[in-house]
Amino acid sequence: MGTTQLESVQEPKYWHLKTVLSEALDSDFAVGEILPNERDLAARFGVARATLRQALEQLELEGRLQRRRGVGTTVAPPRVGVAVAAVQHDWADGGGTDEAWQPVECTTATAPASVAALLDIVADAPVHVVRRIRLTHGQSVAAELLYVPTSSVPELSAIDVPSGPARARSVLRELHRRGLDGQDRSVELGSARADDAKELDRLPGAPVLVVTTRYFAAPGTVAVSVATYRADTCRLTFGDSGALEISHDEQVETRQAS
Amino acid sequence: MGTTQLESVQEPKYWHLKTVLSEALDSDFAVGEILPNERDLAARFGVARATLRQALEQLELEGRLQRRRGVGTTVAPPRVGVAVAAVQHDWADGGGTDEAWQPVECTTATAPASVAALLDIVADAPVHVVRRIRLTHGQSVAAELLYVPTSSVPELSAIDVPSGPARARSVLRELHRRGLDGQDRSVELGSARADDAKELDRLPGAPVLVVTTRYFAAPGTVAVSVATYRADTCRLTFGDSGALEISHDEQVETRQAS
Repeated sequence: MGTTQLESVQEPKYWHLKTVLSEALDSDFAVGEILPNERDLAARFGVARATLRQALEQLELEGRLQRRRGVGTTVAPPRVGVAVAAVQHDWADGGGTDEAWQPVECTTATAPASVAALLDIVADAPVHVVRRIRLTHGQSVAAELLYVPTSSVPELSAIDVPSGPARARSVLRELHRRGLDGQDRSVELGSARADDAKELDRLPGAPVLVVTTRYFAAPGTVAVSVATYRADTCRLTFGDSGALEISHDEQVETRQAS
Repeated sequence: MGTTQLESVQEPKYWHLKTVLSEALDSDFAVGEILPNERDLAARFGVARATLRQALEQLELEGRLQRRRGVGTTVAPPRVGVAVAAVQHDWADGGGTDEAWQPVECTTATAPASVAALLDIVADAPVHVVRRIRLTHGQSVAAELLYVPTSSVPELSAIDVPSGPARARSVLRELHRRGLDGQDRSVELGSARADDAKELDRLPGAPVLVVTTRYFAAPGTVAVSVATYRADTCRLTFGDSGALEISHDEQVETRQAS
């Protein structure tokens, strides 16, 4: 991890402890190993338990530790790099690869006001709401609600089943037929809704990265996706024209330079 | 905000309260307004104070509330959309626009191991470390360490001053002369280092979005940036080929659809 390059600011005690702990995690502990209890750790590093707890919280925020009720504090595996930009371009579900968005449900409803504004539709216009779960290496890393105005997929067969994964796949197929002119997205911190938390094996309210994507096809926005990524285990990656993604081999090394 | 579209999961009490509070914030409170104290709020909504506190924490995570010592809990302004993709392409400092990266310091040091690996240099190779602060509408929204191997800017004058903002500008100018073939980046949750926290007017350890960017120019990686964005006030935006960024007018509406 190295040390801070610019040493002009005095760091609080728990911050220094965090750095020391972080190095100890690298050298003395294996991924998945359970840490000693707080009393023993505090004694080992010669700090108050309150200081220790603050340092542990920081390390949890940075994805180095996981704290689970009934298990204790364990050393977290490195965050998984999850490519955000290109995957959904063809609305496919991964075609049997290890990387897949699985459609799990589809309903027809009205969109939340915020989503209706992004779609540029009136607030009570009907939209298909496709729910998908993103799997990476067999783990759920994201839960998504994809909002598709009924006007975006006019060819959708009315005789289909009205809901369920099969309906979701029909909506995605129609979107795919329309093609895509572009997309933009935003990333912000959020807290997991109860339904998302359940899918992601987190408690409701756990920190998540919320990725909001607008999909464009002439003459306007054809769909909006609100995807909730686990913030503890995911590092979102964005490639650029011609550039390579940060590779899996390197991701172990790409924690926050601290 | 609307309600959850798929009601299959029972939500805990604080979550329901969060939704109710969120609607109350929209209708009854102005940005910057101080909320009643916890006792009064708990009484008003008929909940235990522990439940109230959990709901307030959620709203803080989502950027709806700010809690400051000595002030109390205030209604937060909408998050600011901050474009991440294109701004640094020419290494310019914004040219007098409202949107700028300000170089504040430059030192020569060795990079943290994680950064050296991304740069594909040996661990003890010297790098220029440029520190920049990003301003949006006059506010510091991000603090960055830009690591530039000395081999990336061989033409850099040795007779320059060895550190300070002027040196930082020289390094950026040399990078600009080299041009850029591409970039990739990752976004993850982190906690603010003490020096960054000070620049960003946050407490050390506050949640931040850490954006790690690799800059490519033949034959390899010429620089790596580790930028720390305030997670409470920033929404990072990413445009795509030909697509418009989510505009400022709409950003008020693009909170997490909850």
